This record gives sequence, C-alpha cells and structure tokens, in this order.
Amino acid sequence: MEITELSKGLDTIWVVLTAAMILLMEGGFALLEAGFVRQKNAVSIIMKVFVDIAFGALIFYFFGFALMYGLDAGGFIGTTGFLLNGDLSHIQYNITHETYWLFQCAFVIAVISIVSGAVAERINFRAYILLTIAMTGFIYPLAGHWVWAVGGWLGKLGMIDFAGSAVIHALGGFSALAAAIFIGPRIGKFTAEGKSNIVPPSNLPLASVGAFILWFGWFGFNAGSTLSATNSSIGHIAVTTMLSAAAGGAACILFTMFRYKKADPPMVINGSLAGLVGITAGCAFVSDGVAILIGAVCGIAMVLVTELLESKGVDDPVGAFAVHGISGSLGTLAVGLFALPELTKSVGQGYYGLLYGGGWNLLGIQLLGLAIVSLWGFAITWLVLMLIKKFMPVRVSRDEEMIGLDVGIHGVPAYSQEHDFLDVDQLKGDKQG
Amino acid sequence: MEITELSKGLDTIWVVLTAAMILLMEGGFALLEAGFVRQKNAVSIIMKVFVDIAFGALIFYFFGFALMYGLDAGGFIGTTGFLLNGDLSHIQYNITHETYWLFQCAFVIAVISIVSGAVAERINFRAYILLTIAMTGFIYPLAGHWVWAVGGWLGKLGMIDFAGSAVIHALGGFSALAAAIFIGPRIGKFTAEGKSNIVPPSNLPLASVGAFILWFGWFGFNAGSTLSATNSSIGHIAVTTMLSAAAGGAACILFTMFRYKKADPPMVINGSLAGLVGITAGCAFVSDGVAILIGAVCGIAMVLVTELLESKGVDDPVGAFAVHGISGSLGTLAVGLFALPELTKSVGQGYYGLLYGGGWNLLGIQLLGLAIVSLWGFAITWLVLMLIKKFMPVRVSRDEEMIGLDVGIHGVPAYSQEHDFLDVDQLKGDKQG
Amino acid sequence: MEITELSKGLDTIWVVLTAAMILLMEGGFALLEAGFVRQKNAVSIIMKVFVDIAFGALIFYFFGFALMYGLDAGGFIGTTGFLLNGDLSHIQYNITHETYWLFQCAFVIAVISIVSGAVAERINFRAYILLTIAMTGFIYPLAGHWVWAVGGWLGKLGMIDFAGSAVIHALGGFSALAAAIFIGPRIGKFTAEGKSNIVPPSNLPLASVGAFILWFGWFGFNAGSTLSATNSSIGHIAVTTMLSAAAGGAACILFTMFRYKKADPPMVINGSLAGLVGITAGCAFVSDGVAILIGAVCGIAMVLVTELLESKGVDDPVGAFAVHGISGSLGTLAVGLFALPELTKSVGQGYYGLLYGGGWNLLGIQLLGLAIVSLWGFAITWLVLMLIKKFMPVRVSRDEEMIGLDVGIHGVPAYSQEHDFLDVDQLKGDKQG
Repeated sequence: MEITELSKGLDTIWVVLTAAMILLMEGGFALLEAGFVRQKNAVSIIMKVFVDIAFGALIFYFFGFALMYGLDAGGFIGTTGFLLNGDLSHIQYNITHETYWLFQCAFVIAVISIVSGAVAERINFRAYILLTIAMTGFIYPLAGHWVWAVGGWLGKLGMIDFAGSAVIHALGGFSALAAAIFIGPRIGKFTAEGKSNIVPPSNLPLASVGAFILWFGWFGFNAGSTLSATNSSIGHIAVTTMLSAAAGGAACILFTMFRYKKADPPMVINGSLAGLVGITAGCAFVSDGVAILIGAVCGIAMVLVTELLESKGVDDPVGAFAVHGISGSLGTLAVGLFALPELTKSVGQGYYGLLYGGGWNLLGIQLLGLAIVSLWGFAITWLVLMLIKKFMPVRVSRDEEMIGLDVGIHGVPAYSQEHDFLDVDQLKGDKQG
Repeated sequence: MEITELSKGLDTIWVVLTAAMILLMEGGFALLEAGFVRQKNAVSIIMKVFVDIAFGALIFYFFGFALMYGLDAGGFIGTTGFLLNGDLSHIQYNITHETYWLFQCAFVIAVISIVSGAVAERINFRAYILLTIAMTGFIYPLAGHWVWAVGGWLGKLGMIDFAGSAVIHALGGFSALAAAIFIGPRIGKFTAEGKSNIVPPSNLPLASVGAFILWFGWFGFNAGSTLSATNSSIGHIAVTTMLSAAAGGAACILFTMFRYKKADPPMVINGSLAGLVGITAGCAFVSDGVAILIGAVCGIAMVLVTELLESKGVDDPVGAFAVHGISGSLGTLAVGLFALPELTKSVGQGYYGLLYGGGWNLLGIQLLGLAIVSLWGFAITWLVLMLIKKFMPVRVSRDEEMIGLDVGIHGVPAYSQEHDFLDVDQLKGDKQG
Repeated sequence: MEITELSKGLDTIWVVLTAAMILLMEGGFALLEAGFVRQKNAVSIIMKVFVDIAFGALIFYFFGFALMYGLDAGGFIGTTGFLLNGDLSHIQYNITHETYWLFQCAFVIAVISIVSGAVAERINFRAYILLTIAMTGFIYPLAGHWVWAVGGWLGKLGMIDFAGSAVIHALGGFSALAAAIFIGPRIGKFTAEGKSNIVPPSNLPLASVGAFILWFGWFGFNAGSTLSATNSSIGHIAVTTMLSAAAGGAACILFTMFRYKKADPPMVINGSLAGLVGITAGCAFVSDGVAILIGAVCGIAMVLVTELLESKGVDDPVGAFAVHGISGSLGTLAVGLFALPELTKSVGQGYYGLLYGGGWNLLGIQLLGLAIVSLWGFAITWLVLMLIKKFMPVRVSRDEEMIGLDVGIHGVPAYSQEHDFLDVDQLKGDKQG
C-alpha cells in the first residue's frame, strides 16, 4: 500500500459519501415542498423533484458538465467533457473525473430543486421538464463556469464562493423568483384588492423532517466542497455550518415570537435553511462568531422578505426566493465583509474582508459577481420560459389547478384512505376524463 | 502511526459507514411499502420490516453467515463461523470479520425486505417470522455461497455479480413472486372475470421519500461492496449507480407520459428503483453509457411486467417482482453483454462481454447462474411456505383482511386523528375482541 | 502528503460524518415524537426539537462546552473554552478542537431531545426554551465533565461509559422523568380513579421511520465516539450496536405477542431503541453475545417499566424514561458485569466485569456513577423547573391543551386538507384570538 493510493482512496470516499449526502437532500426537498404545498399538489411537487434528479443528472452528464467545467473558452464557457470525454486535464484533483462529476451533479440537481418550489401547484409538467433541461444544461453550468471553473472570468477577478451561496442559491433563488412572477400566482392566492390569502401547509411534520434531512446533507454540501479529506478547513466548515443553521433557527423562533406572538413553524423551518444557505459561501472563510451573525441575519431577512413578496403579490409557495435568493445574496456579500486571510489562504487566497481592514476590493468583487449571477439567473429563466411558452402552455389549466395537479395531471391523489378496491375500468375512465 | 494501521482504519470506516447506509434502506423500504399499501395495512407492513431487521440480523449472526461465508464444503455450503466463531481464515480482507459480517448482514436484511412487499396486506404475521428465519438463515445464505463465497461453485465457474443483481435482487424478487402466488391475491383485487382492481396508494409522499432514502443507501450498497476504500472503482461505481437510477426514473416519466398520457407517480418511483437494481451487478464492470441503457431498459421493463402480472392475476402490491426480480435478472445478464475487461480486471477478472467481442462464455455463465439462483429462490420459498402451512395458516383470516392488519392483527391504526383519550379498559376489551 | 496529515484527515472526516449522522437523529426524534403524540400536538413537539438543535448548539458553544470540557477545577467543572477560546490543550485528539466540539454538540442536542418527549403535549413553549438552555448550558455539561472530561471525578474513579448510556441516556431519562412528574399528566390521561387512558399514536409510519433514522444515527453515535478512525474497536462497536438493537426489537415482538397476544407496534419501535440505548455504554467493552443479552433485557424492561409508569400515574407520552432512563441504567451496570479486559484495554483500561472474575469493583463504580448522574439529572431538572415556575407557567393553559398546542400555541395545524385559500385577515384574527 502506497501512501498516494491511500490518499486517493481517502479523498474518493470523502467525495462519494458527501455527494450521496447531497443527493439525499432531494428527499429533503421533496418532503419540505410536499409538506408546504396544499395536499392536492403534494405528489406533483415530488414528481418535479424526480424530474430534477433524473433529467438533471442525465443532462448534466451529456453536456451541462462540459459547459461548466470543460476547457475554458474566453472565461465564458467550457468546451470539453461532453459525456465525460475529451480533455479535462485542467481539472486537477486527487480524485477521478468521474468522482468529481458525481459531486458536481449533486449540486446541479439542488439548483433546479430550488426552482421547483417556487412554481409549485401550477406549472405545466412538460414545461417544467424543459425548464429543468435548460437549468441543468446551460443556465447553471454557465454561471458556475464563470465563478468556479479554471479560467472562469469572475473567479479570475477574485470572486470567492466556497460552496455556492451565489452560484447555487442566489442563482437558484433569482431563477425561482423569475419563474414565480412569470407564471403568476396561484388562483385565489391574492384577492382582487391584492391581499394575500393563506392556507396552512398540508403536512408540517413532513416539511420539518425535510429540513432536518437538508441540514444533514448540508454538511456534505459545505464540507464536501473541499473535495479533499485532508483539507484542514473541514472541521471549521462543519462548525460554521452548524452554528449558522442554529442561529437562523433560533433567530426565527425569537423573532416570530416577538413579531407574531407565536413561534411560527414554517418560518422556523425556513429560518434554519436560511442560515444554511447564508453560510454556504463563507463557511471556510469566516469565524464562528460571524457564522452565528450570518445565520441570524439571514433568518430574520427571510421572514421580512417573505412578507414583502406576499405584499407585492408575488406567489412563491415554499419561500424559495426568501430562503435561497436572499440568504444566498447576503452570504455572498458577507464574505466581502468578514473574510479572514488565514482562512481564505487555505484555499489559495489571502483576502481580508472589509471589516478586517481589507478595503472595498473583495466586497466589490463579491457584489459584482452576485449581481451578474443573479441577473443571469433571473433574465435567462424569464427568456427560457418565454421560449417554452411559444410551444406549450407553461401553466396548467384552470380546471387542473382547481382539482389539484395530483389528480388533475398525475391521476392519483397524494393520500388515500380507500380501504377497498375500485373497479379498474372505472379508474381508467377517470384518467381519460 | 503505521500506514497499514491507517489503511485498516480507512477500510473499516468505509465499510461501517456504507453498512449503516444500507441498513438505513430499511427505513426506505418501510416508507415505500407503507406508502404503497392501503392505509389499513400501513403499520403491518412496517412491522414486517422490523421483523426483517431484528430477526434477520440475529439469525444471520447465529447461522446464516456461517452457511454463506464459512469454510466451503463442496462448493455448496459454508461450515464454519456460527456466531462468528471457527475458522474464517479464508476471508481475507483488510477489515475484521466482524466488520465484514456487518456489511453482509445489511445485505441479507435487504433481501427479505424485498419479499415483505409482495406479501403485504394478507400474510399471517407468525408465518412471516418463520419465512424471515428461513430466508436469512439458509435460502439467501446458500445462494450467496454459490456465487460469492470462496469456493462457491457458481463463482468458480466465473459468474460475476458485483453487488447482487442476482444474489440479492433476482433471488429476492423470485422469492417474492413465489410468495405472492402461493398466498394468493388480496380479497377484491381481481374480479371474478379476472380483471384487476386498483386502489390508489395510501401515502405517495412517504413512498417517494422511501425511494430517495433507498437511492441514498444504494451508494453504500454498490460502492461499499468494494469492501476497500482504496479500490479504484469506487468513483466509477457511484457514477454508474447514479446514471442508471436517473435513466430508470427518466425513462418511466417519458414512457408513462406516452403510454398513460400522464407521468405516473408509482411507476416513476419504481422506475428509479428498477434502474438501481439493474446496475447492481454491473456497476463496476460496465461503462457510463451502458449504465444509462441498463437503467432505461429496466425502468420500461418494470412498467410492462407490472402490467403483465396484473393481467395474469398475480397480486404483488408494491411491485417487488417487477422491480427486483426483472431488473435483477436484466442486470445480471447485462454484465454478460457489456462487461469491459479493463473494469472486470479491477476485481480480479478480465472478461469481455458478448457485445465487446468476448463471445458467449460470460453471458452463458451469467444466464446459468441467474437461472439457478432464481429457480432456487422461487422453489425453496414455495416449499418453505408449504411447510409453514402444515403448522399454521400463512394467510390472515378474511375478517382480519377486511378490517386491515393494523387493527386486525396489531391492534392499532397507522394514523389516528383522535384528540381525546379513550378509556383504557374499553381499549383492552377491543384488543381481546 | 505526510502520513500524519493523512491520519488527521481520516480522523476528521470520520468525526464530521458521524457527527452529521448524530445530528440527523434530530430528524429521527422529530418523526418519532410527532408520530407518537396526538395529532393536535405534532407540530409543537417538532418545534421543541428545533429549540433543541438551535438553542442547544448556540448555548453549548457559548458556555456548555467550556463547563464540560474546559480545564478542570476540582474534578467538578470545566473553566476554559467559552466560545472555544482559552486553554484547551488538555484535549488531545488527532482532530481540531472545533471538530471535537461538533461531535460533542451533537451529543448535547440528543440529551435535551430525550426530555422533549416526556413533556410533550403540555409544556409551555417559553419554559421549554429555558429548560433547554439549562440542560445544554450546565445540567448535562456538569455530569459529562464528571465522567468524560480530563480530571472529572467519576472518570478518575474508573467509571466507564463509552458513548453515554449514563451520561446521555440515564441523565436524559431521569431528567425526563422529573419533568414529566413536575408538569403532571395530560388532561384526561388518567381517570379520577387513577386508571390510564390511551389514544392511539397519530402517525405510526412516521414514528417507525424515526426509529430507523435513529438506528442509523446510532452507528455514528457509538462508533464515532472513538473519535479516531484507526481505533481498532470500530467494527466491534458497530456490530454490538446492531445486535443489541435487533435483540431489543425481536424481544419486544415476541414478548408483546406473548403478553398482549399481538406484536405491539409502539413497543417494538421503542424496543429497538431500548436495545440501542442499552448497548451505548458497553458497545466497545462487551462481547457480541452479551450485546444480544443487553438488547433483549432492555427491550423487555422497557415494556414493563412503561406499564409501571402508567399504573403509577406518571404520564410520559413517548416513553422517554422507559427507553432512555431504564435502558441507560441497565447498560451502564452491564459494563460492570460483562466488561472484557481485552476490550476495555483498547481505550486504556483493562477491567474485568463481575461475571468474568473482576470482582465488585467496576460494578460498584458504575453503580455509584449511575446513581450520581441520575440523581443529578432528576433533582436539578426539578429545581430548574421550580425556578422557571417563579417567572412563568411551565404548563400551557387548559384551553390551549384542549385545542392542542399546534393551533393553540403555534397557530397552525400539523396536517391540513384545505384545498382552497382562506382570507388572510380572517387568519390573522384567529392568531390573535
């Protein structure tokens, strides 16, 4: 046994195990979203998560990965690595390219899953498949290339985003916002006078457990992003991740007790997630205390932005923008404020954040990168939906929406208390009806 | 710190962590099956999963492991290792025999859990315990010995089955088929004219999340089967596993949209699982592209076989045979078609599959092995059930089936919306009634 | 790459991954408890789990960790390490102090989650937050210091508790008992004549899956407690953990079939957990066979103690004391009976248990330590609740309890079948009402 072989094995299992944890987050998204939406749409949202993971993985294998991590052309796009073939010699890790692909694949699936929540309960299923293909095929890969790939122009400018507050969450969140606005609110969500109507989530225990599974997966998401088990930041990353999530949850418990006179369960669930999103960019770069601050700020911001969207008539059923878009943005900027050189050095940088005397440079770069990524996410999603709309409706029919997408589109309810068998012919008739 | 000690530690945590992931699949089976069956039987199916894991682990410790991996007698059976005692020196890994046992224990529990789905909603609980003892005590151990143990006759012939498409899934699937036929369909499932009646699954969100947990566990199942963290195939295995599962899911989304005019949720759930089952034999031996092909074929075959069983009057409530039996068979044969010598070499073989010019040899061996294992699974399960039937009914009474096994057998419903307390005496009366 | 760097990386990922598994147990607790309580309180119990993880992590970061693992003062308390600052040079592992903190943080959150079940359906939410702060800030840290910290007086006497049957489970269980008695039974739980009334659990599939997730996490809990991936006990620990859990489940299946004429689902769920709790102290120190014995005894004891508490008028809605208090106690004592010197040597001890000729010494120390820890847990919890009661009610109002805490306190039901939107003003009125 050579030490290099051992080292390769160690890094490989680290990346494979953390990739599996990230992929389990799809189960978390499924639970979270199925729990938050109305019961009549609980299956349809899970079917979208299946689209994310099934189509997302294949599309990213066919060409998304190549556009993201292939040999750079002009800082803008990758050009090799379709079906993992071609020159990928610029990707230099202690793991195989396949292993590297798996980890990145888990990421791309998370991005589209963020969007799925915002269009819940009303998007046309076929249109969603096309949106998924666009997101995993080029929307995310291009933005990711700019920040993370060897030669990407934002990365060359000095933007740092450890595990993707910007590249994953701000992009996904702004894409979600665009899609939610483009498709419009659910029928009955807002009154003629613009007042917001609310229905309670269909299954809060499921949503809660979704959050716990996401929290678990996030340790893979953030600490796994080292791509090396001997990276000395792993422990620190895991701790900042934990503290920020805890702070997000605790802040939302206290803030909603103050603001609503009750600890609001959906807000507490999303508050923990907001803390996780917020620390994703800086988990390796900021101190423990700053992680707590980031989590708390993101949690409270999430509550306020959720209220703001409601008041503006934007219908985002699971809070995808407030959780991912806002916290992702705040987290990206926080790196510009709070980065510590002894920590950023560990990934080959040595920046000071503004508040530690590093000047406006890093913050400016972070802000620029965030703006680019967010605008890209919003605008290209809008364009893609416009394009899709030329070929098919992006929204289900009024009848399907009223019946619910589960029975209306997928022919089966989420929950059934039937104890006896129906006649199958009768059921087939229903399906065609 | 010696490098050998480090190497042992690395392999140990790899096997322990992946074994834990496989054992978590029991939670996945429980959710999947509880979600697919009627509400009145949701607890009873989970109780069977508890039987699987509790009795399965103990029986496999007492004697199943010895018959499977003990010192070989005639290529047919193991003879040492009862309670992990005796000569096990032929098991040569970089981990302790106990660690090895844990991983194998996770496998045996998966096998019997496959069967549990096929007999759902009607098997007598005591008979199920006996069936579990038979399966984990000698049905699976013998088949496993033939293929995987040092000296096993099918393994010596050259059969390869990396993580068990044949040994786990085809065996479990054909055993499930035998049990489903032996016990007969649920009351009302088929009309007098043989038409199939359907009730919607009781809880599709739970079933879906079961699938995601199974998917997560499968990375442990397949990649962990290397039993060594420095095996250079780990990354490849994880990627083929991912791609095949994605292809199974995507194929079922598209195929059911074409065939039924809707993406059918239960089929999509089972399609992903079919992809996972199909790649289990070849995950280390076939290319990424072939993995996608295997997944897609297994997904579609699963739909067709599910329909076929329905039309033939076989009642397999969760699709255990269509998912595990069929995809396990296809996956085993796929190795004979698509094995690549540079990949099979990594586990000490160097075969070409038929389509890469290796001739009919490997395919023939795979077919023989598959036939043996499947026939064994079917026939011995049938015999065991016949034997059990001499001592007790294998099926619940008509009344218990109509009431549902949860209340009828276990005295408690799966879901209760009671908000106030009953009198305990009254309840006790119910139990005895 | 140096071998020391590799070794550090290996230990770090081992501890981070197992810590993440333990933290996922919070999802398990949430499911288990939400499934066991009445539907009207399912969200409120999950909100308590969020309090556990959010406040628990922060408080333990601020000062709990320092009191537990800081520089010892008199064997009684730690004095350094607030916010992970100060002299922690006595903590000598191959991982950073931050990584060490994360693992210990996962433990403290588990302790308070044990208590949450016992006070379910009736504790005042604000009082619960204060109790959480007390438990994670000093109740558990002090007891933990005595047994586990460098210089702790019980540890110096020779008490051994590998992963916390005493420190985690007996402490948590006796604290839970104190809280359950202090707060009193739920309205209607006992008749005027002292008879116990029962309602069926609201969601047994969720509770079951909670148990499977806890089982999964327990591999992290026990095997991760080595804090080193090259500890030669890891495989053995995982196997004893598995066998004891299986024995607990199997014993409860058989025992309830004998005693109640049915395999009782809640008892089987808790029986598996009892087996896991029972082996937690001795997982590294006892043989496989003894692990089976411990699991079976703990499972059956859990059933009997559950009945006993019911008959005594103590209302512990999820069986926290019977599972954690009793099995934790039995497991702690079992070490004194069954410890094997070749196993205890692996962690720097070489004791024989009483039954292997080691005399009464170890058993006496275990008994003393258990008594101290349990009394401390009971008494201090009682005192803290008395103190809290001076400032606020520890129990919700009668109306809130009757309505249920979900709507009564948190303003939202766990499950909603609403398909259409309410007017938001109307809902706001409800919240203030």
